[in-house]
Amino acid sequence: MSEPLPPGATIGILGGGQLGRMLSVAASRLGFRCHIYEPSTNAPAADVAHRCTTAPYDDVAALTAFAQSVDVVTYEFENVPTAALDLIESLRPIRPNRRALAVSQDRIAEKDFLTGIGLTVAPYAAVSTADELDAAIARIGTPSILKTTRLGYDGKGQARLTSPADAPAALAAMQGAPSVLEGFIAFDREVSVIAARGLSGEVAAFDPGENVHREGILRTTTIPARLSPGQRSDAVLIAARILNALDYVGVLGVELFVTKSGLLVNEIAPRVHNSGHWTQLGSAVDQFEQHIRAVAGWPLGDGSRHADVVMENLIGDDIARVPQIAREAGTQIHLYGKGEARPGRKMGHVNRLARPS
Amino acid sequence: MSEPLPPGATIGILGGGQLGRMLSVAASRLGFRCHIYEPSTNAPAADVAHRCTTAPYDDVAALTAFAQSVDVVTYEFENVPTAALDLIESLRPIRPNRRALAVSQDRIAEKDFLTGIGLTVAPYAAVSTADELDAAIARIGTPSILKTTRLGYDGKGQARLTSPADAPAALAAMQGAPSVLEGFIAFDREVSVIAARGLSGEVAAFDPGENVHREGILRTTTIPARLSPGQRSDAVLIAARILNALDYVGVLGVELFVTKSGLLVNEIAPRVHNSGHWTQLGSAVDQFEQHIRAVAGWPLGDGSRHADVVMENLIGDDIARVPQIAREAGTQIHLYGKGEARPGRKMGHVNRLARPS
Repeated sequence: MSEPLPPGATIGILGGGQLGRMLSVAASRLGFRCHIYEPSTNAPAADVAHRCTTAPYDDVAALTAFAQSVDVVTYEFENVPTAALDLIESLRPIRPNRRALAVSQDRIAEKDFLTGIGLTVAPYAAVSTADELDAAIARIGTPSILKTTRLGYDGKGQARLTSPADAPAALAAMQGAPSVLEGFIAFDREVSVIAARGLSGEVAAFDPGENVHREGILRTTTIPARLSPGQRSDAVLIAARILNALDYVGVLGVELFVTKSGLLVNEIAPRVHNSGHWTQLGSAVDQFEQHIRAVAGWPLGDGSRHADVVMENLIGDDIARVPQIAREAGTQIHLYGKGEARPGRKMGHVNRLARPS
Repeated sequence: MSEPLPPGATIGILGGGQLGRMLSVAASRLGFRCHIYEPSTNAPAADVAHRCTTAPYDDVAALTAFAQSVDVVTYEFENVPTAALDLIESLRPIRPNRRALAVSQDRIAEKDFLTGIGLTVAPYAAVSTADELDAAIARIGTPSILKTTRLGYDGKGQARLTSPADAPAALAAMQGAPSVLEGFIAFDREVSVIAARGLSGEVAAFDPGENVHREGILRTTTIPARLSPGQRSDAVLIAARILNALDYVGVLGVELFVTKSGLLVNEIAPRVHNSGHWTQLGSAVDQFEQHIRAVAGWPLGDGSRHADVVMENLIGDDIARVPQIAREAGTQIHLYGKGEARPGRKMGHVNRLARPS
């Protein structure tokens, strides 16, 4: 398929969380229907999708029927099992492509890829044993951070080392999973670029946002980020280099550390990204629609920022503040329709207009 | 029910067209689910709703099950049969209330109500027979326009009279339906106010927009409208007077003629309104969310305009221009997921940022 998908076509989305929910809404604006595939029940995306299949990723019949019912398949998270992807790909195009997924599913593969295309990342070393960890600490030093190479997100599967004495506990926290030791970067701030590449190779980037994390979870993104014109340009060029090297189709999130010696790539996410939620208020075309446009083979939209925005995540009990937030001026609420407000669970977010003071 | 509906509650929407579709999306942002009730198949709203019942308005079992499955009921159009509303209202609150519906379902009742609260409308007279039409023409004169009192919209059920000789043809066009003769108003421009009233009585209005109709169908709305500060204030006060007089809960559209001698009310619509679609791009809280907030007993949101917008409807074959529009800067597309592009059918709309030139 290289023709643009016509309105009325169906887009399949692997994963039914909040990103799938907002992708489905964006797809509806372009006249598309969405079919969600999600193993767990009460998927947030199901409330706003044409159809939802609730089945595990090893259900061959369900995966086959899902793929046959849609025109193209995308995903809202990067940890879809390989066998499921193989099956789907035999029936329908998957966008972004498998290489983007493979690279981002594994921290070592990601860092090897990034350095291979000339980008800078924190010092890193693969670690599976106590001896390897000792050798890695000898080379990279402390403070540093040990992370599982796969399936980590939102601060899970991570352990900080402030001295070599922390090595045994950190290794134990990995529970035997292959890991990577990353050198600690003294960064001034963390920013991210949400960028997109279309089916015909054109690239567009939203303005970089400045991120604040707490306990490994994104709390706020402020637009515009405090960057010099040169840094802003570098940030966008880094994202474009990654997109082109991966022959990518869709939206990609790139987290960057701003340091005294330049920009370092922290990690990439082959999907719409939490730090791009501000585009729902600040841009005519938001990151969700941009992703759908790319996946559907449409031209990319104009994501220029026409308003300054601060995005705040609503984590766990933050949801209890919604009645107050609902009375605030210049504030746009996005709730995800999740039942239980567990600690650390992303329940929604708020986009606030940053008015000139 | 006077407590605000909690996230997770279900809102029932009578009518599954594009307004129901965009209401359902707005409801999802506040964590609500929507259950659509729509007699016709392939309802645009069904693609983005938790649930859709496809049944006629005289299906007592379906109406009962629908009402029992939701927490509150609203509607996207004003011509829901009375018996269906009676049944639903015995089970769940209907917002906006029945009086707002009764008034807006009948042009005579609407004009009597508006003049009764001190507002100005075009000269009008009820007409059912040729003699009554002659008498009405003698009083109101020509040019004037004959309209059926009920079920008219988008230019249907209307006939213009340029001289008394047009009377027989105009009456024939009404096909025996009770009608109203309205005097022609020499207006400078047509504007509309989209206003909301919450459950606790607070009122908020979006900035008035300036409308251009062609063949009885809205083509564009431009924000802000060309109004003097006094006219702008008058327009909002008129909307507020209507909302308060009806003890209204929800969003109301008020179409106004701007004349040399002041503002005249053309008509009101007890629902979100086509001329308020610009709020999706120009306001943090759009008209759809504002309606859902009111219906759910939430505080009204901040609908201040933070960007100037021109909204253009995509009517019938206009849909063929979407590939070009998709490449335009500062442009947001909204398609309704309708199959056939019949002449006069609203297929979507476009919101364009009006950048300072």
